[in-house]
Amino acid sequence: MEKSMEKKKKEDILRIGLVGTGTIGRAHIERVNMKLQGGRVTACADPAGEFGVEVARQFGIRGYANPADMINDPDIDAVMCAAADERHEEYVLASIKAGKFVFCEKPLAPKADACKRIVDAEVAAGRKLARVGFMRRYDSGYLQLKAAIDSGKYGLPLLLHCAHRNPSVPDTWDNSMAVENSLVHEIDVLRWLLGEDYASAEVRCGKSSRRGPSGLRDPQVLILVTKLGVRIDVESYVNNHNDYDIKCEVVCEDAVLNMPKPSRISVNAGAFAGQGMYTDCYQRFGDAYDDEIRAWISASKEGFADGPDAWDGYACQVAAAAASRARETQTVVEIAYGETPALYRGERAERKGATS
Amino acid sequence: MEKSMEKKKKEDILRIGLVGTGTIGRAHIERVNMKLQGGRVTACADPAGEFGVEVARQFGIRGYANPADMINDPDIDAVMCAAADERHEEYVLASIKAGKFVFCEKPLAPKADACKRIVDAEVAAGRKLARVGFMRRYDSGYLQLKAAIDSGKYGLPLLLHCAHRNPSVPDTWDNSMAVENSLVHEIDVLRWLLGEDYASAEVRCGKSSRRGPSGLRDPQVLILVTKLGVRIDVESYVNNHNDYDIKCEVVCEDAVLNMPKPSRISVNAGAFAGQGMYTDCYQRFGDAYDDEIRAWISASKEGFADGPDAWDGYACQVAAAAASRARETQTVVEIAYGETPALYRGERAERKGATS
Amino acid sequence: MEKSMEKKKKEDILRIGLVGTGTIGRAHIERVNMKLQGGRVTACADPAGEFGVEVARQFGIRGYANPADMINDPDIDAVMCAAADERHEEYVLASIKAGKFVFCEKPLAPKADACKRIVDAEVAAGRKLARVGFMRRYDSGYLQLKAAIDSGKYGLPLLLHCAHRNPSVPDTWDNSMAVENSLVHEIDVLRWLLGEDYASAEVRCGKSSRRGPSGLRDPQVLILVTKLGVRIDVESYVNNHNDYDIKCEVVCEDAVLNMPKPSRISVNAGAFAGQGMYTDCYQRFGDAYDDEIRAWISASKEGFADGPDAWDGYACQVAAAAASRARETQTVVEIAYGETPALYRGERAERKGATS
Amino acid sequence: MEKSMEKKKKEDILRIGLVGTGTIGRAHIERVNMKLQGGRVTACADPAGEFGVEVARQFGIRGYANPADMINDPDIDAVMCAAADERHEEYVLASIKAGKFVFCEKPLAPKADACKRIVDAEVAAGRKLARVGFMRRYDSGYLQLKAAIDSGKYGLPLLLHCAHRNPSVPDTWDNSMAVENSLVHEIDVLRWLLGEDYASAEVRCGKSSRRGPSGLRDPQVLILVTKLGVRIDVESYVNNHNDYDIKCEVVCEDAVLNMPKPSRISVNAGAFAGQGMYTDCYQRFGDAYDDEIRAWISASKEGFADGPDAWDGYACQVAAAAASRARETQTVVEIAYGETPALYRGERAERKGATS
Repeated sequence: MEKSMEKKKKEDILRIGLVGTGTIGRAHIERVNMKLQGGRVTACADPAGEFGVEVARQFGIRGYANPADMINDPDIDAVMCAAADERHEEYVLASIKAGKFVFCEKPLAPKADACKRIVDAEVAAGRKLARVGFMRRYDSGYLQLKAAIDSGKYGLPLLLHCAHRNPSVPDTWDNSMAVENSLVHEIDVLRWLLGEDYASAEVRCGKSSRRGPSGLRDPQVLILVTKLGVRIDVESYVNNHNDYDIKCEVVCEDAVLNMPKPSRISVNAGAFAGQGMYTDCYQRFGDAYDDEIRAWISASKEGFADGPDAWDGYACQVAAAAASRARETQTVVEIAYGETPALYRGERAERKGATS
Repeated sequence: MEKSMEKKKKEDILRIGLVGTGTIGRAHIERVNMKLQGGRVTACADPAGEFGVEVARQFGIRGYANPADMINDPDIDAVMCAAADERHEEYVLASIKAGKFVFCEKPLAPKADACKRIVDAEVAAGRKLARVGFMRRYDSGYLQLKAAIDSGKYGLPLLLHCAHRNPSVPDTWDNSMAVENSLVHEIDVLRWLLGEDYASAEVRCGKSSRRGPSGLRDPQVLILVTKLGVRIDVESYVNNHNDYDIKCEVVCEDAVLNMPKPSRISVNAGAFAGQGMYTDCYQRFGDAYDDEIRAWISASKEGFADGPDAWDGYACQVAAAAASRARETQTVVEIAYGETPALYRGERAERKGATS
Repeated sequence: MEKSMEKKKKEDILRIGLVGTGTIGRAHIERVNMKLQGGRVTACADPAGEFGVEVARQFGIRGYANPADMINDPDIDAVMCAAADERHEEYVLASIKAGKFVFCEKPLAPKADACKRIVDAEVAAGRKLARVGFMRRYDSGYLQLKAAIDSGKYGLPLLLHCAHRNPSVPDTWDNSMAVENSLVHEIDVLRWLLGEDYASAEVRCGKSSRRGPSGLRDPQVLILVTKLGVRIDVESYVNNHNDYDIKCEVVCEDAVLNMPKPSRISVNAGAFAGQGMYTDCYQRFGDAYDDEIRAWISASKEGFADGPDAWDGYACQVAAAAASRARETQTVVEIAYGETPALYRGERAERKGATS
Repeated sequence: MEKSMEKKKKEDILRIGLVGTGTIGRAHIERVNMKLQGGRVTACADPAGEFGVEVARQFGIRGYANPADMINDPDIDAVMCAAADERHEEYVLASIKAGKFVFCEKPLAPKADACKRIVDAEVAAGRKLARVGFMRRYDSGYLQLKAAIDSGKYGLPLLLHCAHRNPSVPDTWDNSMAVENSLVHEIDVLRWLLGEDYASAEVRCGKSSRRGPSGLRDPQVLILVTKLGVRIDVESYVNNHNDYDIKCEVVCEDAVLNMPKPSRISVNAGAFAGQGMYTDCYQRFGDAYDDEIRAWISASKEGFADGPDAWDGYACQVAAAAASRARETQTVVEIAYGETPALYRGERAERKGATS
């Protein structure tokens, strides 16, 4: 009987090959092998050949000089892609070609047309294999907001007031990155939250803080309008020299809903009473990062793909591209996705996120 | 000695003539004669002649069939105007002509040109006699926000996110009134809060609630940009079937400041913990209404005019008119005030509000 | 007609003689003569003879070398007593003898037997003339708690958890003063809040802070049990080097009710989000101080005595004395008041506080 | 290479035998086998023989009619005990005899002398093998409180005000159970939080709610004083017909610290603004349950025992027994533990909890 136990266990473990062994990639190896259940990163590789092999040595797992060889190795059940954004398309397409589930860090690809090629590959393959790392769909706050909206108890959502605040960014940060880097998370999670697509994007600037790199327009305000007319404003303030804070206020017909503050003890001292706030996204979304990988591993073993799919990854980059154009031109830019392929239709929106 | 006491008291009391004996006017009589110190409504009148005399009889004060006679009576030291908006100009001009301090309910006049005629009359008279009832400048929450901004401790304000929410409005309410009626308070108080003028106005609509009169665009979003580039969004949602709630979030370079919730006991019951909210502006701004009149009476006795002046009343209607045009045309409309007359210059902004 | 107005006004003003021209006394003169409506401190006196006359000169009111002469002056309608606690009995009895309403700062008298003599004097006179300055009964937070309890909506109160926190006290402060000075306010307001008398008192100490005068037992915990068995714990921490904070948590059968925090703006800065707290009782209870005097003036003019009466003042000192004994002996001490005279019966508890 | 991987994996998995297949036991099987990393419940048994075998069949793991056989099976690396409290001693002693790490649900044993026998067995064996399921030491709120206290930033703790509130209890619940069942968690976690032992216990009752079984004294207040004089009051209210709420307020010399509310979205509707509360301990402490088992599995594999040890389990029951006596006699009862055996000394208190 112990035998069958062992056999069972072997099948139990999803053998993952990870490509891209930078900071985020190594964090994934630790998360999967030290913390989470049911999967194991048994091999890794990096576009920079030997570097991936060296990281593998450190973790006592197999290293490959060439990521493609790892992706195609029959001893690898599934792939995680944490390489530079520009390489995502290559490794995701290779995984689809190999018929393997692949978890890709966001964005699916920087450009919408690259995302579209991934969508086309899945359509051709007739299977949904790629998943995108939009971890916010797994955050307890957003899940509670979604449950409250979907309950219908509070009427329809009419307006959203959101903010994405961050203590500081590197000097390499430029005016395009507020939209193309940080707001991409809002673009995906709010589409998921409302369960509908966007019709237009607009980007305006507030008065700029003197705290950031000179010449940086910060804060910026992204205004999205959905097909059904819900108006969303998202403040991006990436040099607030304060905290990492994500605000999401949903004005419904009969109620106003708000994300909770971080769950920190209250301190009343020095004639001031309050609580500490988080200072980075790993503190704020730590549990969500774990839960998305946990969900992906379980789903992959069951043979279906859970979480944001290639179409979501594509839709997000289409909206992001429109927002970037809106920022450059300071006009309102329409957002058009083209028709959703049958492969991606008829799935309830929340099915694509955490099922909590 | 008691004599001199009596004499002193007589001088002490500011003898006020009130014009416009409707609900708000009668509330002012009660406030001044029952609650506040140092003034007394000793007479009242109403455009509807006999009605004012009847109200006077009820309060045991003198009644005048003709408001002008009351305004010109030497036994009247100052005037309060609570008549219909359209009549404000007439009574305020009469008071200025009579050389008397006059407190006028907001708006100073519905149209900017009427406000301008009042400004011109004061300039001609060389005295500032009119004050406008923008009570929010006396609200503790706004005063704390202003003190925090003016302290410089938190850097410059960059963005403001505001909301003006209300349970319901009469069926006579139309799409223009969000801006022209309820948001006028924000237009004044935010200009005072930031201590600078507006450069442009824009009005957009969210998805409309099904709870209001059919055809009503509600909520609406007013976007104001100041001369120095501070971007302000104000949500007006007047049929929320919930509470009367005023939100003001000030995003500064180094901090985010927010108005406090109403000071209500917390109730933890039925597995829900929270507090009751207000349902009308008289609950929310009750103290502010008292404080503005108290400040006006004291200042009038000292011989200067405290609080929002005629130029503030004019500036507010200029911005409101621009916002209305912006709503009708769905474009961004520039706001131009013309040059500020010397009479209204060189006064620090906060001097024009509560000094607390 | 103006004549009758003048006449009316004369009658309108309650002419108050104030005895005890120290800090609190002078604050009362300013409050009544500068801020509140319907009364006027027209004279003052001080046990230290000439000092009172000097203060009168500063305020331009009449001064008396001998407080008794002022109290008996027919031009004085009512008396305010802000003299040292030990002198309260003398001036309150004199006022009762003169048949005048008298507002006495808390305590009515330091010792219960002195309070009892005042009660006896009122019973002999057959009139309730004395009122005690327990301003907390006029605080919005306590009023909301009382309204919630009296509504019956939340079931019966079972337990109260309270705290009385203070930044620091003078070095003259000793171990008896937590109970005899600061907790006297809780002893009165909680009896009023629950509408019932106490059965026993107990005082225990926590570990003492090293921040106070050496040898001081601080914090101390006062435990009161009511006749119906409600158990109350009150923390007194008078050297918290932090803020002035009053906590009152009412555990009812079906809900937990809590006093609101001060109504201050929230500040999110330095990765900490919260609000400023008050640092003294005049900030915390500023409105309550005004409201209690306002209520007393109005009631006095109507010819009845509003607010905490002599029996309340007596009952408070009886409980305070028991608490002091409990502290000295570290035992549980019973509290017995003797029978309530008919004069003080049959009045609903809340009638004795603010009627809001 | 894949071979060695498999080999490694086999060693990696801690093979757990679970005794006591009731609700909690089965929840542990699911938690370990479905959710957590590094361990696997490979067998189970129940005092009720066949029942354990049936549960094993459902989970596809090995079942034993006799728990002892399972505990002694060389294919079992460690033991989890979720049997009825009275059986804990038997299975924990058996595990120690077998030289296996054993995780025992709280209490280690209902009676202190039984706990002492377990302590003696470990001392005889010269190893610490037993761990007790006091999951609160792994709760983020308590961990933050402990970190804040241990930082020394806020001075020494002086007073603790705690509450343990619960919607309802079965009719079988009697007056002894508040202390012996629900407050046992506070007795352990507060001793851990302060890092010191108790000197005395006292139990008093508030007015009883009419909502519970008739005759039940509810709420009850447990008062603990530590060796260094910190005074702790803990309200136990187990029929509040409201929510499951754990309060812990730590009054330090320079600050007041409080546990956070549950992290739920805020809802502003119906003129009331607040958040949902939890209604049972599995919602409130769900993460803590996971984290304690996760920590125990990891530590067991590293060969040491993490978390509350047998001495903690013993110390808790000693205090609980004193509290029960205090409740029965309504007196203050001293708490004496006897000398701590060397085996349990020289470990920093926090070492015994989560290391976060």
